[in-house]
Amino acid sequence: METILNKLRKAAPAAALLLTVAAGTALQGCQKTNGNDATGATASALSSDAASQVYVAPGKHDELYSFLSGGFNGQVSVYGLPSGRLLKIIPVFSQHAENGYGYSEESKAMLQTSHGFVPWDDLHHPKLSRSKGMTDGRWLFVNGNNTPRVARIDLTTFETVEIMELPNSAGNHCSPYPTNNNEYVIAGTRFSVPLDMKGGTGDVSLDSYKDTFRGSISFIKVDQEKGDMDLDFQILVPGFDYDLANGGKGPSEDWVFFTTYNSEKAGTLKEVGASQNDKDYLAAVNWKLAAKYAKEGKAREMPANYYHNKMDKGTHTAKSTVKKKVRYLLPEDCPGLMYLLPAPKSPHGIDVDPSGEFMVVSGKLASAIPVFSFSKMQEAIKNKQFDGEKNGIPVLKYESVLAAEVKEPGLGPLHTEFDGKGNAYTSMFVSSEIVKWKLKDFKVVDRIPVYYSVGHLMIPGGDTKEPYGKYLVAMNKITKDRYLPTGPELAHAAQLIDISGEKMKLLLDFPTVAEPHYAQAIKADLVAPKSVKFHKLDENKHAYVAKKESDASVTRQGNVVRVKMTAIRSHMTPDNIEGVQVGDTVYFHVTNLEQDWDVPHGFAIMGANNAETLIMPGATQTLKWVPKKAGVFPFYCTDFCSALHQEMQGYLRVSPKGSNVPISFSTGKKKAASVALK
Amino acid sequence: METILNKLRKAAPAAALLLTVAAGTALQGCQKTNGNDATGATASALSSDAASQVYVAPGKHDELYSFLSGGFNGQVSVYGLPSGRLLKIIPVFSQHAENGYGYSEESKAMLQTSHGFVPWDDLHHPKLSRSKGMTDGRWLFVNGNNTPRVARIDLTTFETVEIMELPNSAGNHCSPYPTNNNEYVIAGTRFSVPLDMKGGTGDVSLDSYKDTFRGSISFIKVDQEKGDMDLDFQILVPGFDYDLANGGKGPSEDWVFFTTYNSEKAGTLKEVGASQNDKDYLAAVNWKLAAKYAKEGKAREMPANYYHNKMDKGTHTAKSTVKKKVRYLLPEDCPGLMYLLPAPKSPHGIDVDPSGEFMVVSGKLASAIPVFSFSKMQEAIKNKQFDGEKNGIPVLKYESVLAAEVKEPGLGPLHTEFDGKGNAYTSMFVSSEIVKWKLKDFKVVDRIPVYYSVGHLMIPGGDTKEPYGKYLVAMNKITKDRYLPTGPELAHAAQLIDISGEKMKLLLDFPTVAEPHYAQAIKADLVAPKSVKFHKLDENKHAYVAKKESDASVTRQGNVVRVKMTAIRSHMTPDNIEGVQVGDTVYFHVTNLEQDWDVPHGFAIMGANNAETLIMPGATQTLKWVPKKAGVFPFYCTDFCSALHQEMQGYLRVSPKGSNVPISFSTGKKKAASVALK
Repeated sequence: METILNKLRKAAPAAALLLTVAAGTALQGCQKTNGNDATGATASALSSDAASQVYVAPGKHDELYSFLSGGFNGQVSVYGLPSGRLLKIIPVFSQHAENGYGYSEESKAMLQTSHGFVPWDDLHHPKLSRSKGMTDGRWLFVNGNNTPRVARIDLTTFETVEIMELPNSAGNHCSPYPTNNNEYVIAGTRFSVPLDMKGGTGDVSLDSYKDTFRGSISFIKVDQEKGDMDLDFQILVPGFDYDLANGGKGPSEDWVFFTTYNSEKAGTLKEVGASQNDKDYLAAVNWKLAAKYAKEGKAREMPANYYHNKMDKGTHTAKSTVKKKVRYLLPEDCPGLMYLLPAPKSPHGIDVDPSGEFMVVSGKLASAIPVFSFSKMQEAIKNKQFDGEKNGIPVLKYESVLAAEVKEPGLGPLHTEFDGKGNAYTSMFVSSEIVKWKLKDFKVVDRIPVYYSVGHLMIPGGDTKEPYGKYLVAMNKITKDRYLPTGPELAHAAQLIDISGEKMKLLLDFPTVAEPHYAQAIKADLVAPKSVKFHKLDENKHAYVAKKESDASVTRQGNVVRVKMTAIRSHMTPDNIEGVQVGDTVYFHVTNLEQDWDVPHGFAIMGANNAETLIMPGATQTLKWVPKKAGVFPFYCTDFCSALHQEMQGYLRVSPKGSNVPISFSTGKKKAASVALK
Repeated sequence: METILNKLRKAAPAAALLLTVAAGTALQGCQKTNGNDATGATASALSSDAASQVYVAPGKHDELYSFLSGGFNGQVSVYGLPSGRLLKIIPVFSQHAENGYGYSEESKAMLQTSHGFVPWDDLHHPKLSRSKGMTDGRWLFVNGNNTPRVARIDLTTFETVEIMELPNSAGNHCSPYPTNNNEYVIAGTRFSVPLDMKGGTGDVSLDSYKDTFRGSISFIKVDQEKGDMDLDFQILVPGFDYDLANGGKGPSEDWVFFTTYNSEKAGTLKEVGASQNDKDYLAAVNWKLAAKYAKEGKAREMPANYYHNKMDKGTHTAKSTVKKKVRYLLPEDCPGLMYLLPAPKSPHGIDVDPSGEFMVVSGKLASAIPVFSFSKMQEAIKNKQFDGEKNGIPVLKYESVLAAEVKEPGLGPLHTEFDGKGNAYTSMFVSSEIVKWKLKDFKVVDRIPVYYSVGHLMIPGGDTKEPYGKYLVAMNKITKDRYLPTGPELAHAAQLIDISGEKMKLLLDFPTVAEPHYAQAIKADLVAPKSVKFHKLDENKHAYVAKKESDASVTRQGNVVRVKMTAIRSHMTPDNIEGVQVGDTVYFHVTNLEQDWDVPHGFAIMGANNAETLIMPGATQTLKWVPKKAGVFPFYCTDFCSALHQEMQGYLRVSPKGSNVPISFSTGKKKAASVALK
């Protein structure tokens, strides 16, 4: 197989590559055989070495947190490295039956959008917040792809605390990219759509793609202290597809770069139509200048309709605000704002080296990897080395901005990260390998097969000024026979590679939840010490909190019955409730009175549709229920909390509508007075 | 700390135990320190040994599949052993944003119940199907706890294929227990509720608990070839709480045993009220005799209302059947059907040893573990060694059925499994340890601390006639500092212990998704060879399948628009659709044409609420969408499938209601005729 690959590498050009794309599956099958051989006979000494490198003994902690996107599950998965153990799934854009996110009354507003409630979306790129170009362990920003949104996760609680919807966007894929001090989180559209600056419907013929479709780049301002986001303005850009983005650093830190494909503006069968041009573009945007233009009144305003959802810390309750307009800039009005750099064919990843001088562009159908020079780009702009323009945006001459091309790197380059020691690592989808090359002379120095068809790769801090060049994680798109089979649906496959030496060394295969598209990792000591252990009951400002058992109550107001309930080992108060009627709307506001680490309580009641909720110590969560029939319905704690957990249980009686059973509630023998409000 | 524990062990009795329960958290904190010490200084040689025992080198497979329940997430998690790697989450009783279970039109019916659609429930006990008392790797049965149901997972596809709701049940906890050849899967209620055999509402005062509440045991018949389930009959039992169950084997294989607590019939503050009696009961039921009684006309019939949901193999579509009656037996009518064995205090686990002679009952508040003898029980029944009766059920004399008590085992015994080499292993919740004792003389021979507060434990096949006594998995209820912290919500903690030698040896901590209550494990070669790689397109009988691109179509019938779409690397057909109007109900029936392993395609469209679906090769999945506004909505493949995945995309135009844009669809340049039905 190696021979065929080498022949293909040498034959190189696009036609052969397209053939190779089709042959991808066959290659994967063959490589598997090689892989098994490699890990066979001679490998047992190596194997025990690798075993001790990834083993985290009981009671010890992993060295790094890694945050892998879940892709089509809409969530973020937190893995410890080097063990590859799944520490938590953080729900972001999808409901999560593990902890009630998107099911509880408190969290439902997080998933509200201008299209209504979206219980399941597609999440791609996690990016850690930055201080002076270095990840600071405060927040994690992630993108919602299908329903364009950017979310912020708080790394003291590992909870999604804010979601900002993006108007004028479709397929929010080159997103989110925080600048070096989180001044902005920047997000570009993958798909262009008809944009009507006067707020029209956008109901146009699909044949009008070339004339009416546009993309957009959103600039979300971030509060430096609190992290709060606000959509400041957008730039409306030509109707290409925008794929990935990354910010500059050091000399280039005022700039952000976007790969584009489909500069052909094909509106159908893009597989063919968007692969016609020999070159598409890297779009370079001066974000600082953009912010200046926007501030100085260059921005116009258009009608829009988008949601901004925030989780309130005190009430543990999310609220939505609907925004009705958005400011925008047009590149043609803003000289110096944006340039296009020609980049061979259908580029996917754009990655900037730690010095900020080199922009590496991986053309997924290209036979070489172009590396652009930021200083040459500045020079070329000054000298107006243009090759015409597109929609009023100057196109720079390819040769004027090129530092070098990495030759014969492999097939299907997608993404590049850096180790901080002068090396770059590029993932090769088609030839299923990671290729290491030197920034000094752009020469390939090592390659290692991965199983199979790697997409993103990640080095902790590998996109910052100072990478932590010890490990690399390959996120592979095809799994096949890497793990015990689980029917047609398989886990995705990540591989941990030791990059501390001259030669890369494969340490561990670990399966991942859903499909990781990119990841971030950070040393544990930047996050762990700030981790919150429980919510302080004193600071709980939930509208229906019961801070002690004597605050528990059941009240009726019309056909709404509110149960303020407390949970503490090992009973709920109240645990006997009567007087509820068929058709009432019953809210169980359950407060977990525990003030200790890792003592959640759960609450479930038979007959409820959204059957459960889970409540962390000190918090209040609400389950809503409209009983459909009369009877006695047991409720209980769903999280094994003590030796008497099985006894932590109660009953609610539902009587027919119009019944004269009064509201009453009790625990043990103490009967409590009912409360009826008008 | 050890000293205090020992003192407590010696002081033993119930009062001290209750104090200890309260002190549980404090104990856990102290033990942590010990644990860290233990894994420190002298431990590095041991550590590297353990590392190589759990390391599964890249390209190699785990030795065993383990199936851990997810508890309050309603799912089953599949982990490879010994690596502890999460291979798959199988959705059962909850929606799952990873693969669309409970979201796609095909799977929604799986979550329908007599209470309506339940998107999230609580799952506790996985049990593998059996042949001659040995796990056979065909199916996995699991219980829905809050909304009483039993589900069957097919282990050729790792998919939930059947869910049977159980009437007259509440908190379906001692469930499901397959007999030795899956003749029946048996399920008992945890909570008793008012049962009205005439189909009345059950709207009674909670004060009437003692008089009106009853439990039930359900007998689900299983088709020996296909696995199809059907509720055959129930036994209505006294109004205790029923906690766990297990079947006999060998001499006792006609019997199934249930622990009960709350024989006090307390209806409030059970923490106190259900802990009054010195002894509750082990209920022994002769299931074969029960089946005979039911067959011979002893069963009466009562009105009921419950769902039976099945996934059809050919259409990949679930259908619900609603059942309206159920047969029941009363123990008082059926001599020899059921006996009660007094068991000290509030017993939790009941586990039968491989020979079928010993029934081990773990009283969570008891100071010793009683082991009952099946042969003595038979003898005592014959000799009528009764101590009165309860609701017409004879109570056997404690001494007449006791084989022995395991003395000073530890605090808070919960569950016991067996290694097939004459040893039993019991989990101790309060003293956080696994205790090994001999079946020969009931003497404790080893103990190992676990972190923290172990609930269930599992030895592969440890509940069968021939356990695979190499590993033990402890499923711990408290995690605290075992992993890098992730805010207030932590993963649960499993620990893998080597039990192949005289002394138990801790190998690995691995975090688990949600809260595992029990698990099963089986050697990989009993499952892996039968694993299905993809669905055969030829055998796809979905009502709206498109088996080739030329079958793709868009049809309107009134305000329903059906899109029969195909997906294959790297385009969808059609990829341009016009003529849809605001307010239409649009069904996207997407067929994945791939016939290769591990090439799923996803489908997402902007604007849709249930935004996505995921389609395995050869299958058809449906996303439903009611567009709310006019415009152009991009759709795309959400699972990275090829080098041109990013190009796998299309557009749908929505026009205002009443617009005269005709239905049309196309791919590339070929315009296809629209189809309009009346």
